[in-house]
Amino acid sequence: MRNNGSDQTASSERQLPNSKRIYVGCEQSGISVPFREISQHVTKGFDGTIEVNEPVRVYETSGPWGDPAFRGDVRDGLPLSRLEWIRARGDVEEYEGRRVQPVDNGYRSAEEAVYARTKARGKLEEFPGLRRQPLRAKAGHAVTQMHYAKRGIITPEMEFVAIRENLGRQAAFAALQDGDRNSLYFQHRGESFGASIPRYITPEFVRQEVARGRAIIPANINHSESEPMIIGRNFLVKINANIGNSAVASSIEEEVEKMRWATRWGADTVMDLSTGKNIHATREWIIRNSPVPIGTVPIYQALEKVNGKAEDLTWEVYRDTLLEQAEQGVDYFTIHAGVRLPFIPLTAKRTTGIVSRGGSIMAKWCLAHHEESFLYTRFGEICEIMSAYDVSFSLGDGLRPGSIADANDDAQFAELETLGELTKIAWALDCQVMIEGPGHIPMHLIKENVDKQLTICQEAPFYTLGPLVTDIAPGYDHITSAIGAAMIGWFGTAMLCYVTPKEHLGLPDKKDVKDGVIAYKIAAHAADLAKGHPGAQYHDNALSKARFEFRWEDQFNLSLDSETAREFHDETLPQEGAKTAHFCSMCGPHFCSMKITQDVRDYAAQKALDEQTALEAGMREKAEEFKQGGAEIYVKT
Amino acid sequence: MRNNGSDQTASSERQLPNSKRIYVGCEQSGISVPFREISQHVTKGFDGTIEVNEPVRVYETSGPWGDPAFRGDVRDGLPLSRLEWIRARGDVEEYEGRRVQPVDNGYRSAEEAVYARTKARGKLEEFPGLRRQPLRAKAGHAVTQMHYAKRGIITPEMEFVAIRENLGRQAAFAALQDGDRNSLYFQHRGESFGASIPRYITPEFVRQEVARGRAIIPANINHSESEPMIIGRNFLVKINANIGNSAVASSIEEEVEKMRWATRWGADTVMDLSTGKNIHATREWIIRNSPVPIGTVPIYQALEKVNGKAEDLTWEVYRDTLLEQAEQGVDYFTIHAGVRLPFIPLTAKRTTGIVSRGGSIMAKWCLAHHEESFLYTRFGEICEIMSAYDVSFSLGDGLRPGSIADANDDAQFAELETLGELTKIAWALDCQVMIEGPGHIPMHLIKENVDKQLTICQEAPFYTLGPLVTDIAPGYDHITSAIGAAMIGWFGTAMLCYVTPKEHLGLPDKKDVKDGVIAYKIAAHAADLAKGHPGAQYHDNALSKARFEFRWEDQFNLSLDSETAREFHDETLPQEGAKTAHFCSMCGPHFCSMKITQDVRDYAAQKALDEQTALEAGMREKAEEFKQGGAEIYVKT
Repeated sequence: MRNNGSDQTASSERQLPNSKRIYVGCEQSGISVPFREISQHVTKGFDGTIEVNEPVRVYETSGPWGDPAFRGDVRDGLPLSRLEWIRARGDVEEYEGRRVQPVDNGYRSAEEAVYARTKARGKLEEFPGLRRQPLRAKAGHAVTQMHYAKRGIITPEMEFVAIRENLGRQAAFAALQDGDRNSLYFQHRGESFGASIPRYITPEFVRQEVARGRAIIPANINHSESEPMIIGRNFLVKINANIGNSAVASSIEEEVEKMRWATRWGADTVMDLSTGKNIHATREWIIRNSPVPIGTVPIYQALEKVNGKAEDLTWEVYRDTLLEQAEQGVDYFTIHAGVRLPFIPLTAKRTTGIVSRGGSIMAKWCLAHHEESFLYTRFGEICEIMSAYDVSFSLGDGLRPGSIADANDDAQFAELETLGELTKIAWALDCQVMIEGPGHIPMHLIKENVDKQLTICQEAPFYTLGPLVTDIAPGYDHITSAIGAAMIGWFGTAMLCYVTPKEHLGLPDKKDVKDGVIAYKIAAHAADLAKGHPGAQYHDNALSKARFEFRWEDQFNLSLDSETAREFHDETLPQEGAKTAHFCSMCGPHFCSMKITQDVRDYAAQKALDEQTALEAGMREKAEEFKQGGAEIYVKT
Repeated sequence: MRNNGSDQTASSERQLPNSKRIYVGCEQSGISVPFREISQHVTKGFDGTIEVNEPVRVYETSGPWGDPAFRGDVRDGLPLSRLEWIRARGDVEEYEGRRVQPVDNGYRSAEEAVYARTKARGKLEEFPGLRRQPLRAKAGHAVTQMHYAKRGIITPEMEFVAIRENLGRQAAFAALQDGDRNSLYFQHRGESFGASIPRYITPEFVRQEVARGRAIIPANINHSESEPMIIGRNFLVKINANIGNSAVASSIEEEVEKMRWATRWGADTVMDLSTGKNIHATREWIIRNSPVPIGTVPIYQALEKVNGKAEDLTWEVYRDTLLEQAEQGVDYFTIHAGVRLPFIPLTAKRTTGIVSRGGSIMAKWCLAHHEESFLYTRFGEICEIMSAYDVSFSLGDGLRPGSIADANDDAQFAELETLGELTKIAWALDCQVMIEGPGHIPMHLIKENVDKQLTICQEAPFYTLGPLVTDIAPGYDHITSAIGAAMIGWFGTAMLCYVTPKEHLGLPDKKDVKDGVIAYKIAAHAADLAKGHPGAQYHDNALSKARFEFRWEDQFNLSLDSETAREFHDETLPQEGAKTAHFCSMCGPHFCSMKITQDVRDYAAQKALDEQTALEAGMREKAEEFKQGGAEIYVKT
């Protein structure tokens, strides 16, 4: 029986095989960045020679939870690793925060909340660990990473990010000739669509990109548990996983484990899309335990506070919700400020109308009041809140198309123009901004989305949901959307919001979350390769070398999901011996193409038919012909 | 528990829900083409209005097995539906075919074969149904579809294909204005990379494409059980599923069911890649029961006949195998005739050498004899066999790269040049040809593959394996390769060879076959949409309309895999009532964006805020602005 995640007892606490947590740091600054290092076996040549295969270092998102030396408890929360950096900047103050009210968790009265706590014991329990007051910017200060970046300050967060993004390439960089080092950008064959990824990411490069608005570091000063990460198209492509309780199912404990589960498999950020009861409590538990930035859509909670009636929403309720969540430490807010009254009728003739929840809430509000959206009219006030806590904007695409038929229509692009306007305003106030994108787009219309977004929003990072490249496969939308996600990542999207197999059908369970994350790790990595990210191909090369050399264990361990790879192999050849045997389970012991290739190579060597000799012996002409014909030797990283 | 195919008792005999087998034909010719028609529920408006939703017609590959009226038995084989057409051409003769020998099934002697038959009763049993002599072209005749096409003859196979490719569009075509009908090609927004798909496929268009070599109809005269289909980039993108026994596992009965299972989910052709024992018998059972073209790699069986020793292969053994398989009715042969002696050393420095089985067998042979490949030197003789039975060439890419590191290298493109040469020779002898392609290619190098192939092989159909866009996800290579497959399909590849989740790890079971087929149906359909195939978006629109209108049953039934879609929905909301309820399982009964959109639409209508009025009431300016800014109204099919 295979269990690739279907084993619901599988926990994020189980360590990955042959993997070691390491930290790479800077002695001066004391910054220490976690990686996972996967050890490999030696290569045994047929002639008895031994070749050492260096361990492969991979980007790690699981935080302290992935460190076997860490003995944490979800009831204590994670260590406040960034707190010292934040305080050292001298621009924040503690204050008596907003009091948690019954309505924050969906209860009408204190009595109802008490009843719920008693009845559903544990569910509404307050977070028992950390007791602290929230931080905010001192009056007259902005505390965003963009604010510092614009003023030439390299923060510890930026240094952390630089080390993190150079993953596994320190040695490669050190080995470069001086001449090579002077060439800042990597030689890339093929189209990289404007991405300019340096061979080596410096803290100064990070600062420049953040100052320019081309990248963001979502890092609320009240979420000092988080490990800094960067979202921008000149960095590794990132992925987001959505989790959330719901009116129908789930419990808080499950939600925390879902976050740990998603980050264990590689989610770079997690969005908490909870609705219904216990939103505040759920979010508290998640944030206190999350090593990655947490995003939310505050309008969801605001809607709960007005009993689900969109028309009863007010700026005051919304503002109060923003403050509530900013104090808790949410790192980015999806805000659908581009859903303006005049654009709404543009959706009336669509096949699938408005499919964004936030978008449809605001559309309903605008029509009910026949008034411009308060998210738009109050945008300056929202920016003030964002800058006081360093909450990043994720400007929502409330009018994104929900079907192939509606892709790239007037409603979508009208909203995008507004998001471009708002980006300028936010940047003027030093707020970090990314822009959300669709959704459902046939392949031939994907690039238009990125091109328009980059132009209209002046290269603010793009953050897309998929896109799904067809509507006809509910149950497999992690695949339909991974196709679009890989392409849009290549074209310049900075972060990809995952889609699970349950999209359009139901609530994702652990298996779905894992399937979604792995599909999106594939898409993001494929995009990194296509963009020519200098560190990307290193992992592929290591895995392919292991495969070619029949190092089965290494092949499993280097896989994005080593457990499933091993399990699939063992279904055919469960014997332990088969993992060291020099034949492939596809072909059986009698015949194996890789074995034959090995023989060919040995034979070629014996007969001095190696490439050099063969070329000298008459192949030169042929090779020249191909070179002239436009073929080039592929440049390996 | 979900079972999307993991339920190994699921059989290809189970009918799909709300689906009806229909036949669309031509009274004059008596040609009758099967489709599946999915019925839909009516749309109930909130105001009590009823809208009828027409049934959706989809391309059908399961043959008579998918017709509930068909009472067949795998031991009788399928009806010989094409036999009359073949005989009517008057250019074939029956003859005393080659005798089946013990070695055809991997046995050294008649005694060993008898022993095996007795011991493993049923496994080597001869096919008990059809008893007939093989057909071949009369002396001096070629019986290929290309042969007829070049001479201006429209065969029944071509007529069948024309009806099949127009799927669901007869009515749409009839409804067109005369002016529209005169415009042969569909208006497509975006890049279609040279594909020219007419609005309506005529038999004459099919003939032209086959004559030009731009499409093939694989249709061995000894496989008259098959339903004609076409492979070419101006037609719907097709997918192939590989099945096969193996030295380690499987039985004949399982293989037949695998073929039926693959075609039930949409495989357009099936390759039988069996190795080891009982190859001949397995193939006989599969071909006699297959409604789709069957492909093989004859060198696999030839290798078995020389006990697995590549160096012992001879032209005579190979030729004998070609005849054996041509008489059985194999529709296309993968022939690695481009693996030439001088190219082999070009692979010596690769990360993963030669990964094609056929390629490595021939490489070993060439090096062992230090002689040019007999597949290359005897190519003319091979063409004679192909033209006498109408077996199509699938010119194999024996030097395809097996890793990202080796993509688009000199070895690969050297072989491609040879395949271009051979295409010309085959065409001169009226043989149908397609060209195989890789394999492992990062996204930015995919298009180069198609462009080179189209130029070098003069637009002969391209047939690629994936490609996988990264190496790092064994266990998920149906996804890594579906990304590449969708893209390469859009760029002009005519058929996509599926990859299952077990690729590189083990033998696919039924769940893997289904997962591979569905992933590739997604890729092929996404490519059809992107190429602007006029019939493609019809299916997406129907499903999205059903989704928007909360017609859950229709949404499931229109899905590529209705069973999984339903099951995923039921995991969250198992109650029957939830399938008719107007809320989405993602959001719970309290809130649903689609419900809100419906309200918005109703509200807009009430307030006369429909698109027209809104535009007149002040939106005109805004709309004009966007039109001038380059946005266009999306042209729906």
